[in-house]
Amino acid sequence: MCQRLVRTPLGRARGAPVTSPAVALLVQKFGGTSVGDPERIRTVADYVSRCVRRGDRVVLVVSAMGKETEELLRLAGDVSTTRPGREMDMLITAGERKAIALVCMALADAGLDAESYTGSQAGFITDTRHTDAKILEVRPDRIRAALEAGRVPVVAGAQGVSTENDVTFLGRGGSDTTAVALAKALGADACELYTDVSGVFTTDPRVVPEAKKMAKVSFDELLEMTSTGCPKPAMRSVEYAHRHGVTLHIRSAFTWEPGTWVTEEEPMEHAVVSAITHDVSEAKVTVAGVPDHPGVAARIFRALADEGVVVDTIVQNTSEAGVTDISFTVPHADLAVALATVDCLQEELGAVRVSGDPDIARVSVIGSGMRTNPGVAATMFETLAEAGINIDMISTSVIRTSCVVRQDQAERAVQVLHAAFELGAPY
Amino acid sequence: MCQRLVRTPLGRARGAPVTSPAVALLVQKFGGTSVGDPERIRTVADYVSRCVRRGDRVVLVVSAMGKETEELLRLAGDVSTTRPGREMDMLITAGERKAIALVCMALADAGLDAESYTGSQAGFITDTRHTDAKILEVRPDRIRAALEAGRVPVVAGAQGVSTENDVTFLGRGGSDTTAVALAKALGADACELYTDVSGVFTTDPRVVPEAKKMAKVSFDELLEMTSTGCPKPAMRSVEYAHRHGVTLHIRSAFTWEPGTWVTEEEPMEHAVVSAITHDVSEAKVTVAGVPDHPGVAARIFRALADEGVVVDTIVQNTSEAGVTDISFTVPHADLAVALATVDCLQEELGAVRVSGDPDIARVSVIGSGMRTNPGVAATMFETLAEAGINIDMISTSVIRTSCVVRQDQAERAVQVLHAAFELGAPY
Amino acid sequence: MCQRLVRTPLGRARGAPVTSPAVALLVQKFGGTSVGDPERIRTVADYVSRCVRRGDRVVLVVSAMGKETEELLRLAGDVSTTRPGREMDMLITAGERKAIALVCMALADAGLDAESYTGSQAGFITDTRHTDAKILEVRPDRIRAALEAGRVPVVAGAQGVSTENDVTFLGRGGSDTTAVALAKALGADACELYTDVSGVFTTDPRVVPEAKKMAKVSFDELLEMTSTGCPKPAMRSVEYAHRHGVTLHIRSAFTWEPGTWVTEEEPMEHAVVSAITHDVSEAKVTVAGVPDHPGVAARIFRALADEGVVVDTIVQNTSEAGVTDISFTVPHADLAVALATVDCLQEELGAVRVSGDPDIARVSVIGSGMRTNPGVAATMFETLAEAGINIDMISTSVIRTSCVVRQDQAERAVQVLHAAFELGAPY
Amino acid sequence: MCQRLVRTPLGRARGAPVTSPAVALLVQKFGGTSVGDPERIRTVADYVSRCVRRGDRVVLVVSAMGKETEELLRLAGDVSTTRPGREMDMLITAGERKAIALVCMALADAGLDAESYTGSQAGFITDTRHTDAKILEVRPDRIRAALEAGRVPVVAGAQGVSTENDVTFLGRGGSDTTAVALAKALGADACELYTDVSGVFTTDPRVVPEAKKMAKVSFDELLEMTSTGCPKPAMRSVEYAHRHGVTLHIRSAFTWEPGTWVTEEEPMEHAVVSAITHDVSEAKVTVAGVPDHPGVAARIFRALADEGVVVDTIVQNTSEAGVTDISFTVPHADLAVALATVDCLQEELGAVRVSGDPDIARVSVIGSGMRTNPGVAATMFETLAEAGINIDMISTSVIRTSCVVRQDQAERAVQVLHAAFELGAPY
Repeated sequence: MCQRLVRTPLGRARGAPVTSPAVALLVQKFGGTSVGDPERIRTVADYVSRCVRRGDRVVLVVSAMGKETEELLRLAGDVSTTRPGREMDMLITAGERKAIALVCMALADAGLDAESYTGSQAGFITDTRHTDAKILEVRPDRIRAALEAGRVPVVAGAQGVSTENDVTFLGRGGSDTTAVALAKALGADACELYTDVSGVFTTDPRVVPEAKKMAKVSFDELLEMTSTGCPKPAMRSVEYAHRHGVTLHIRSAFTWEPGTWVTEEEPMEHAVVSAITHDVSEAKVTVAGVPDHPGVAARIFRALADEGVVVDTIVQNTSEAGVTDISFTVPHADLAVALATVDCLQEELGAVRVSGDPDIARVSVIGSGMRTNPGVAATMFETLAEAGINIDMISTSVIRTSCVVRQDQAERAVQVLHAAFELGAPY
Repeated sequence: MCQRLVRTPLGRARGAPVTSPAVALLVQKFGGTSVGDPERIRTVADYVSRCVRRGDRVVLVVSAMGKETEELLRLAGDVSTTRPGREMDMLITAGERKAIALVCMALADAGLDAESYTGSQAGFITDTRHTDAKILEVRPDRIRAALEAGRVPVVAGAQGVSTENDVTFLGRGGSDTTAVALAKALGADACELYTDVSGVFTTDPRVVPEAKKMAKVSFDELLEMTSTGCPKPAMRSVEYAHRHGVTLHIRSAFTWEPGTWVTEEEPMEHAVVSAITHDVSEAKVTVAGVPDHPGVAARIFRALADEGVVVDTIVQNTSEAGVTDISFTVPHADLAVALATVDCLQEELGAVRVSGDPDIARVSVIGSGMRTNPGVAATMFETLAEAGINIDMISTSVIRTSCVVRQDQAERAVQVLHAAFELGAPY
Repeated sequence: MCQRLVRTPLGRARGAPVTSPAVALLVQKFGGTSVGDPERIRTVADYVSRCVRRGDRVVLVVSAMGKETEELLRLAGDVSTTRPGREMDMLITAGERKAIALVCMALADAGLDAESYTGSQAGFITDTRHTDAKILEVRPDRIRAALEAGRVPVVAGAQGVSTENDVTFLGRGGSDTTAVALAKALGADACELYTDVSGVFTTDPRVVPEAKKMAKVSFDELLEMTSTGCPKPAMRSVEYAHRHGVTLHIRSAFTWEPGTWVTEEEPMEHAVVSAITHDVSEAKVTVAGVPDHPGVAARIFRALADEGVVVDTIVQNTSEAGVTDISFTVPHADLAVALATVDCLQEELGAVRVSGDPDIARVSVIGSGMRTNPGVAATMFETLAEAGINIDMISTSVIRTSCVVRQDQAERAVQVLHAAFELGAPY
Repeated sequence: MCQRLVRTPLGRARGAPVTSPAVALLVQKFGGTSVGDPERIRTVADYVSRCVRRGDRVVLVVSAMGKETEELLRLAGDVSTTRPGREMDMLITAGERKAIALVCMALADAGLDAESYTGSQAGFITDTRHTDAKILEVRPDRIRAALEAGRVPVVAGAQGVSTENDVTFLGRGGSDTTAVALAKALGADACELYTDVSGVFTTDPRVVPEAKKMAKVSFDELLEMTSTGCPKPAMRSVEYAHRHGVTLHIRSAFTWEPGTWVTEEEPMEHAVVSAITHDVSEAKVTVAGVPDHPGVAARIFRALADEGVVVDTIVQNTSEAGVTDISFTVPHADLAVALATVDCLQEELGAVRVSGDPDIARVSVIGSGMRTNPGVAATMFETLAEAGINIDMISTSVIRTSCVVRQDQAERAVQVLHAAFELGAPY
């Protein structure tokens, strides 16, 4: 029941019952699995028709069906090695065109007056960077007119028209961006991202079955949770929503239960810690025994950047006797390149040893409440110590504390931390 | 975390927490959407490997990928109008063969020693009724041997070999049956049915957002809930599990959170009412002013049965002045046939009027606790009355009370009943 | 070798052989099976690059890949019963967009500078009749500009933009129409229709293995051969080409051998008879013993037209004693309706008997030379008589003589006629 | 018309007309494109039913539909890097199972009593080499029984059962092998390979439009024509047919016209030269100035073999002054490895120079008549000389003369040779 979702979780006017819902303007984005086959498309249309019957005004943003974008990319790869950008975008945007037409047909069957709009028709003006275009401006005149005429506009996700009048594609995850940008441009009450999971969890339920779906999460927290394995709206769209104050609701197109709200507000009663995440996709490089000169770190990380290696956590201890160790993490795929790059510098830097370790994991505790609660890091370290888990590296942000541990201890670390911070569901 | 699921929700406390799990033997069935594409298959393999690493022994039962069975049926329909049963089963069982081979490959990548088994190889002996065969016997010798050798057997769902040595298909939903029958034959601790929803809800979350996922439900209750729109393991498999005492766990292959357990036991603290369901798929036929002779009802329902019309609820009021009204519900698709059939009898029966009404809905309150709690029906009627909803027909079973109401009041009825019986989630 | 095809088969001897080809402007249309998968698309691109290297200028018109249009129609049918025309055209035109983008990518790999154009971009203006729009005007300015810049334009078949700025679809077979209309608008030397067969045959090779591929055929002949089972460019496109004097070349995208030219010219040496066809898709209706009044036929065929029954051959014998028989053929699917319609008129017309016969076949001898050669019909009748095949009905056009015979004698009739007119290949 | 094909092209009893065909036992193999979609499957069934109605007895061998095998391989690659052979064969053989079931259904609609057989059921016993198994024995008892019962057996191509009772796949092109082996085992009159081209051509029609379809070709010639771009029945199957005396007929499932017969016999009137082929897939390596010691060639080609490089043509000129040049061709993909390998030996061999040339082509003249006609090579060299085409290398077999020329002159070479040997069609 759509209108409730706007009201209740945000704490506005919980009282008023089912009979007198506030009317909301909602942008509802349906991802690939949500419209993956005819039955699903009809289910979505049925759901949208319930929302409209209850008085909400809705604008749909639809992705290509199921894995169609992947299949189109594969087709292109099977056909061509050059793959000119203009043609790639002509190809890939065909997927969303199919989806919006089909969704409109299903809505027509459900008794709604719906109309499909390509990115261009919906007013998405982009730059000319094919296959990964950026939105320059949204001019949703036709969408507004359709809403005023009582129609349900259905907009193709992840596409626009460039300033040179060519079709452009916004890249993977671009439908989320389309939805958020449209919600902003229309002044919608919320942007609902329907997906195949029921929300954001306090940690990965595969690791901790007691993991609890969060009723809400702040933008800052969600942006820190990129590695949780839970639903991942495209980071670009979350940042866009954060910057423009668009309220998000990440929820399920399978169970239709309320999901997780992403908002700016920091409610009073908010728990200190919101979520535990872990990430096993990185490896560690250590440069040991480096003379502690100015410019040493700059030398190392400039060289890595020149090789295209993305470095995540960096830790440098205070030097003793003018000598220090520098450790950092890189994606597994880049470990070999990173080691080779630093090896070349070893002599120049005067380092004693360069070594790599692929078997690490980063475990993080995330929570907006950490800003005002200094004890979280200490509790985290104690909890790991009690469980016999050694900490290899530590890094922090304002609302996150991360420890690098042995990979085979990572899931155990997540379990004990989830219990220590009492994040579990009560049942 | 697989082993927990056997323990906690059943309240059996089979051991201490995370640190010392009991080893369980689990049959895990993955439906079509769970293995719908390569990414999903790899995700399933990753999950299974976690279960195995934690000490569980698992046997997988796998359906055809995504909508493949539907596509094969459509292909057959495009090719042929005769569609001989033997060839249909040769065709359709190809879908599960593909799936088991791919799952085994992904498990091999995850470091497990897996081996695929067709229904025949897994020991499923069926009768010779093609496209809808019944299991006569399960002789899982090769599955047992594989388990003892430390391998993960991956069994094709919904297939077997007939007593005439032809390939047979168990019909739609047959993978659930395969899983349950295998769990019984192997004496497994539980049969987990992984699907695209996270469990069974107290009512449809599209109608009542506060709808709560049930931690457990009894077989009797689940069998009464066939029309809830929530996850529907094939009824045949639920009945099989009920009859043979196989514990089911209906859960999500997307969020991997614990789902809903289906068991025999009736725990002490069980709520009186478990779920509210509604069904808009039926229409009502009324035969008014029938002289109250013996055999009248028999005449009507024999005639309907001869026409293949499936009748659900039947209500006959006490006669006044030797005259009574008989009403019953039939599927919408059968309304025309039902009316025509009864019309032909009108004169013979001496009925005053025969009428049909397609705009009805059945709303049901379901709960094992109703057996010992007589007030449920009264509360239901009062709640509907207070909401101004008129009751048209009433029928009951030991654990269910159903009212037929106007279709446009059905969702409102579900909402007020869900609130009245306090089934909602606390948040 | 593309340029040869313009020259040789037309006997125009446009120059010396291989070493000095004349440059031609060709519109090459590739149907669905010709671009049915990545390998085929690369094969087409290789072929086109050979044509361009030899100096031809080419414009491609491309259909949706393989059976994609059917699949999109099926998807729409699975999703919706209403299927609004505007959305249907948005959906279906996605197929050709994919195909043109992929063909351009393959051409880029083959070293050609290619650019894709939707129907709208290529200047196809249509009326507003969705799913079956008619071309109002072709303004191929961008195509001409691309050709002058040395590029290979690749145009989406079967689509345009309506006078109300909506995407329109030209209907099944519309790619042929796009190609012919573009050839006319550009003044191309020929329009090549690449398909999965190697040309038009003198009769169905399944019936007569000696059937010979025709080097050329006249428009009139081809239009009479609609039922031959041989390659069938959409009739609308053949009529368009006929009307506008566009030379067609029907040929194979699999063997790439020269196919069948379709032209206006009636060469001197042309055989009297070109082809034998047969058609088993019709049934016969006979109205026997009708009083021979004016307006009787009009009454019958107006009634049939009002029921939407398409009547093909009509035969009425001279009346004897003021009474006549009228027979006509209709598609099998319409036989029941046709019989019912005429039955209703029987009394009014005073007819003695109305009967239907589904087991007929029409066998036709087709040839432009029949215009000046009166003996063809006689030879046809004699040949059938010698073979013991009874003739049930006869109808003729200027270049065709058709006989209705028993269906089980149809193939035999084709065989003896093909031999009698010496149409067979010499080997 | 199937029975004719056995008679006429083999020169047996041409006289007897349509009315009294000899009954033949035919194995008809339908490749992927021939059964690529429902319409094609129904077309095949219609064709087969004509054959049966005319008295032929047929056994079908069917490949997986369209590109299904490729899709299954891709799925496997998307799912797994290990891809165990047993599971790969379980996966891939599902494709043919689908196809045989569908073909049987279509045959049932066409009124035939058909029955599908997997490779195992058809009696194909193979070794245990998964994904590329070899046939050890064919025991077609069930196929014979079905034929005797008047049924049409439909056998899954490219599959069998190993001596360890696992499902095995015979590798790409394995359906041809299945068909040939079955024709041998059943003593069939011919094995018809239906494909998407109409036969074997005298050269590539893309290069020489006058290229003519050959009515017949000898096994030796066909085996020499591997690089012609024309229909390529799997070499393994041609060799098998050659060895076992199985007559092949390569023909079209699209036009159904008679194709090319492959037989042992060398008819009197056979042309000296049958076909011209060219191959641009190889590159040339030259080792110049090698001292002419015994063992030099052995040293080079052993080293290449150890690296897995397949060498085709090798040419060594007579040495002058104890020094010689050795040239050889390798696939383009192996050029870099071949050059590196020989570079390493340069010093040891005392060679002056090692060089590679990717821009070569091999043009070949093929014909059984060359055995008794010494002038062919001379004509070939003269023709190329007159056309100004330089010959770089020459190699010959009993029925083939090949010249390596500049790649950009290859198509011209084919054109002049095709004309010189008068291979063109007369029209």
